[in-house]
Amino acid sequence: MRSIGFIGLGSMGLPMARNLLARGFAVRGFDLRAESAAALARDGGAAAASAADAAAGADLLVLMVVNAAQAETVLFADGALDALPAGAVVALMATCPPGAVEALAGRVAAAGRRFLDAPVSGGVVGASGGTLTIMAAAPRETFEAAEPVLRAFGDKVFHVGERPGQGATVKTVNQLLCGVHIAAAAEALALAAKVGVDLGILLEVLGGSAASSWMLRNRGPRMLQDEPEVASAVDIFVKDLGIVLEAGHDARAALPLASIAHQMFLAASARGDGGADDSQVVRTYLALNGLPRPPE
Amino acid sequence: MRSIGFIGLGSMGLPMARNLLARGFAVRGFDLRAESAAALARDGGAAAASAADAAAGADLLVLMVVNAAQAETVLFADGALDALPAGAVVALMATCPPGAVEALAGRVAAAGRRFLDAPVSGGVVGASGGTLTIMAAAPRETFEAAEPVLRAFGDKVFHVGERPGQGATVKTVNQLLCGVHIAAAAEALALAAKVGVDLGILLEVLGGSAASSWMLRNRGPRMLQDEPEVASAVDIFVKDLGIVLEAGHDARAALPLASIAHQMFLAASARGDGGADDSQVVRTYLALNGLPRPPE
Repeated sequence: MRSIGFIGLGSMGLPMARNLLARGFAVRGFDLRAESAAALARDGGAAAASAADAAAGADLLVLMVVNAAQAETVLFADGALDALPAGAVVALMATCPPGAVEALAGRVAAAGRRFLDAPVSGGVVGASGGTLTIMAAAPRETFEAAEPVLRAFGDKVFHVGERPGQGATVKTVNQLLCGVHIAAAAEALALAAKVGVDLGILLEVLGGSAASSWMLRNRGPRMLQDEPEVASAVDIFVKDLGIVLEAGHDARAALPLASIAHQMFLAASARGDGGADDSQVVRTYLALNGLPRPPE
Repeated sequence: MRSIGFIGLGSMGLPMARNLLARGFAVRGFDLRAESAAALARDGGAAAASAADAAAGADLLVLMVVNAAQAETVLFADGALDALPAGAVVALMATCPPGAVEALAGRVAAAGRRFLDAPVSGGVVGASGGTLTIMAAAPRETFEAAEPVLRAFGDKVFHVGERPGQGATVKTVNQLLCGVHIAAAAEALALAAKVGVDLGILLEVLGGSAASSWMLRNRGPRMLQDEPEVASAVDIFVKDLGIVLEAGHDARAALPLASIAHQMFLAASARGDGGADDSQVVRTYLALNGLPRPPE
């Protein structure tokens, strides 16, 4: 697999496509914003004029689009699936609900192409550095064929199951924990702010204790900033925790902590902070508890 | 400070007192169970006949009792405070509500003794290994006088504030995160079990991703066991998250995630699992969602 089509060259997709180029893959990319494909072309890739143009002749087509609906549009309405050679692989790497992934996989298989459910974790930093975690589900043969491509994106590549939808499930569970951990860090800092302890010392203590989480260490310091740079936006978690709750609904699993965390991000978005860094869910707790902003 | 009184020689207190002996401190210990003080005596300490006997002549009196009510009884009803020399330090190291700690500190100061609010994190493993995290609040002079004693207990000794109650607050916030992280791990595993992904692979993926927490890595594998060894019991979090909610109530801080997590531990206790390892809060999610036990 040397010839890769790539659809969705946003803040995640473009650096991922560049990592393919750096490993010698031929990449033909498409994005709704023409300047993104032009940027890829400047780095040695090819700018496709349409989704179908990106897919034409590819061994593997990466979909790094916004959601499952966009993946469906690209594949079926925009003709990418028809343009893809028989037996080629569709790698859906966006975060999508497990049920939607299963449905797409069935339609792709029915059209004689292979499907790889392969969402990622690690954000823009991981996409740029080639250090994403990749949670791939597909029959082993498909996974092994695609593995060299996946290793260009991430250093933690897992084959989590044979059935498409299982990758999306692992990613969903991943996002459940990420979202709850960010909201919990905000809840903890808001309590500490209300009682009046030094939040810098608090983060130092908690970052080295059993209370620690990856998100506490990463987002905690940004919660103490008034307008931190946007690493990932509040509205991403409004979407992703929505997917978590949809997965719970479909599977009949009650998720009380995730539902509360979702409401906290939703409230942040409701107050106009949807585009702010997701650490700013702390503002929901400040608003809730009558605290000034920022907490220090 | 070489002469230490020690009240409360349970699963935490006894190994802590032993670490004092190993560093050459003289330790006179008391516990309601006489066999605990006898065990300390066998290791080179002295067995006190009463709380007041443990405090008599001590430079510093450690209270590693069950809760604030027991600390109050020991100090005031049982005569330990009166037995303690003027200017000696009372180090309250149990997990207590910040408001109760402040009140005790005031009464100790009024009696001419010094007060150190110094709760710990790290469990029995940290107590035995001398690797506890210690969150100490007191005027700097008191903290510095007691610091060599604290360093016998832990390698992460923080002076988090000048005012007693601030240590208890940091510990409270610590427990908020610990409790929410354990419950979140259980919620995540229950969703994954319901959808049907391999839980061992799931923990491997999540343990190395942004979804990771100290508790996920520590308690997650024990959630997959049917009857894991009890490292810390469900009822400890029923108590500690109760303290978290009390602190939130006193400070007027709404804590929606902590309140949900508390309910999950409470439900585990309600079903007769209060003495089980706290990882078994996962059984609440299994019961809630009609899943067999264990989740695999």
